[in-house]
Amino acid sequence: MAATAGLDTPLAVVDEVVLNANLDRMAEFASAAGFALRPHGKTHKSPELAARQISRGAIGLTVATVGEAEIFAAAGVSDLFIAYPLWLTEGKARRLRAIMEHADVLLAVDSTAGAARLAHHLPHARVVVEVDSGQHRTGVHPQRAGDIGHSAAAAGLQVLGIFTFPGHSYFPGRPAAVGVQEANALAMAAQSLRAVGIDPVIRSGGSTPSVAHADPTVLTEIRPGVYPFNDAQQVELGVCSLPDVALTVVTTVVHLDGNKAVLDAGSKAVGADHPAWTTGGGRLPEFGDARVTSLSEHHATVDFTDSAERPRLGDRVRLAPNHVCTAVNLTDELVIVDHHGTLTRWPVTARGANA
Amino acid sequence: MAATAGLDTPLAVVDEVVLNANLDRMAEFASAAGFALRPHGKTHKSPELAARQISRGAIGLTVATVGEAEIFAAAGVSDLFIAYPLWLTEGKARRLRAIMEHADVLLAVDSTAGAARLAHHLPHARVVVEVDSGQHRTGVHPQRAGDIGHSAAAAGLQVLGIFTFPGHSYFPGRPAAVGVQEANALAMAAQSLRAVGIDPVIRSGGSTPSVAHADPTVLTEIRPGVYPFNDAQQVELGVCSLPDVALTVVTTVVHLDGNKAVLDAGSKAVGADHPAWTTGGGRLPEFGDARVTSLSEHHATVDFTDSAERPRLGDRVRLAPNHVCTAVNLTDELVIVDHHGTLTRWPVTARGANA
Repeated sequence: MAATAGLDTPLAVVDEVVLNANLDRMAEFASAAGFALRPHGKTHKSPELAARQISRGAIGLTVATVGEAEIFAAAGVSDLFIAYPLWLTEGKARRLRAIMEHADVLLAVDSTAGAARLAHHLPHARVVVEVDSGQHRTGVHPQRAGDIGHSAAAAGLQVLGIFTFPGHSYFPGRPAAVGVQEANALAMAAQSLRAVGIDPVIRSGGSTPSVAHADPTVLTEIRPGVYPFNDAQQVELGVCSLPDVALTVVTTVVHLDGNKAVLDAGSKAVGADHPAWTTGGGRLPEFGDARVTSLSEHHATVDFTDSAERPRLGDRVRLAPNHVCTAVNLTDELVIVDHHGTLTRWPVTARGANA
Repeated sequence: MAATAGLDTPLAVVDEVVLNANLDRMAEFASAAGFALRPHGKTHKSPELAARQISRGAIGLTVATVGEAEIFAAAGVSDLFIAYPLWLTEGKARRLRAIMEHADVLLAVDSTAGAARLAHHLPHARVVVEVDSGQHRTGVHPQRAGDIGHSAAAAGLQVLGIFTFPGHSYFPGRPAAVGVQEANALAMAAQSLRAVGIDPVIRSGGSTPSVAHADPTVLTEIRPGVYPFNDAQQVELGVCSLPDVALTVVTTVVHLDGNKAVLDAGSKAVGADHPAWTTGGGRLPEFGDARVTSLSEHHATVDFTDSAERPRLGDRVRLAPNHVCTAVNLTDELVIVDHHGTLTRWPVTARGANA
C-alpha cells in the first residue's frame, strides 16, 4: 500500500505476488487433475491477465458477452467460449462473424428456438448445450440436453458437448455438495446427448468455490473466474484466506466516530453485492474483525467494535470487495504493484462490454 | 423501445418526454417552495443533463468527488458543491485549485482535523458543515455544528452554513418523518452555528424521497439526485409511478421456463443494489406484477407468476434499475429517445470518477 501513497483514493490495486500465486495454484490444480482450464475473463476483463492465464496453460478464455469476446479476440486470444445462451440478432451475428475470423468461438444453446436462430445466422457454428445443475438460472434439465443437442445438430450446428455453471456454490458449506450435483448433472446430460448419437467431447463446469470439488471422471474442463484476485465472498466461503485476496481498493478514512469509521469507497468503487450470507459489504485485510455494515455510493461504513486495532482519521485502509467481478467492472484501470513496489497500470479493456 | 430495435441489448435508454417532465416538476416544486435547487450530478454524470437542470433554474450542481467536479467544471458548470467530507491530500488539493480557476466550489467539513487540513491546503475555501440528521453515516451531531464551524473559521475557512443528507428516507413509509428530522437537525445546527457567531446562510438538505417533505422555513436549498430518471426504488417508496421512470435498460429474454424468464441484463448493467425492503432487483414497467427475483452479472431472473401478460423468448423487455445512480455509472453512454423516436447519445462523462 505504501507504493500507492501518492495516488488519490479510492484506487483498485493488485498485489502481483499474490496474483501470481493464485494463478499458479489454479493452473497446477487443473493440470494435476487433468482438467482443461478455461478461466472466465469477465472477472478481470484484462488482456494482460488473460495472457498470464494462457501462458500458464489455460486453453483459452470464457466470456459472457459478444463485447468481451471482441476485446479478447482483438488482444490475440484465439480460443473463446461465450458461456451464455445468446439470442442472436443480425447485429450480434455480424459481430460474431468478425470475431470468428480471428478466433475459434464456442457458443451456447439452451433452447430449440435459440439454436435455430443461431444456425440461421451462423451455420455450422460450434456449440455446447447449457445444463442446469441446480442454480435454476439458464440451462435445461440434464435429461433435456439430448433434445436440445439433437435439434441444434439438425439445424446444422456442431454440437460438442455440455456445460453448466454451478452458481449455487455461493453459499457457506455448500461447495462440496454442489461439486457432486455438477458432476451428476453433467453425467446425466452426457448420457442424454449420447442417446441421440452425439459425443459430448466437452463437459465443462466449475465455479471458483466449487472447482476443488469438480469430478475429473465426468468433467473435461473447468471455468473458474474469481480465483486470480479472490474477494471477500471467497474468504467467507472458506475458499481462501484474506492474505490470498490480490485485489483490494485502497481507501481513506474520512470520518471516525467511536467504533465507526467511514471509508471513501462505496458501491461505485467496490460494487453493491451484499448477499445475506456475507458478514458485510466487504472485508478489511488489515482488520479481520472489522465489518462493513453498509455501503452507499461513496461511503463504506465500518464497525470496529470487535477489532483490537483501528485506523485513525486520514489513514489509508484496504477494502476487499465482496465480489471482485463487479468491482473490476467499475474502474478503467488496475494498478499492479510488484514485489519491488513498482507500479504498472493494466487497462480494464472489457469494462462495460455488456452487449 | 421500437426506436432502439436495431441496437444490441442490454442498452440504457432514456425517454426524453418523461425526463423533461421530471426535470420540470422538480424545478417548479423548488421554485414554488422557495428552495434553491442544486441537483446531485452523481446520478447522471452527464454535462448535457446538468445543462438542462441549470437552464430550468438550478443554481449549480452537487457532486460527490473531486473527479466529478473536474468534469462538470470543464463542461462549464460554474457553481459546484462537493457534498463529501474530503480528507485532502496534496494531490486532491492541486486538482481542486485547478477547478477553482473556473468554478465556485463549496466544500464540506465534519471534523476539526479535516477542516484544519482543508485550510492548510486551500486557505479561505468556502465550506459548509455536514450534519447527521439520522442516517448515521458522515456528519456531526447537529449540536456540534458550532464546534466544527468555529474551528473551521478559526483555521481561515469561510463557513457558509450546514448541510445534511437524509439518506434514511430510503425506507417505505419513512420519507415524511425524515423530512421532519432533517428540518429539526438543520434548525438545531443553525442555532449551534449562530451561537458561535456564524450566520448559516446555506441550510441544505433533501433526497429525492424526502424532498417533498423538506421544510422551507428551515432549508434554503435542496439537493435531490435521482429525480430526472427515477428508478424502481422510488416507485416502491411511492415517490413516483412506473411511467415516471425515464431511464430503463432494454434487455432481451434469453431463457423462458414456465413462469420464469431470464433477461440479458444483470448487475453489470443495472447494479446490484437490492435492499431488503425492495420487492426485487428492479421492476419491469410493462409487467407491473412481475418481480426480478435475482440478479447475477448478466442475468436478471424474473418471476411472472402474478403477471397476466408475459413475454416470449427473444422479446425485448425494459428493466427499471433499483438504483439509477449506480446503473448509469455502468455505461459509457445513454441513448436518449425523443418524442419522434429519434435517438441521441449522451456520454456519461463522469462515469467512474470516484477519486
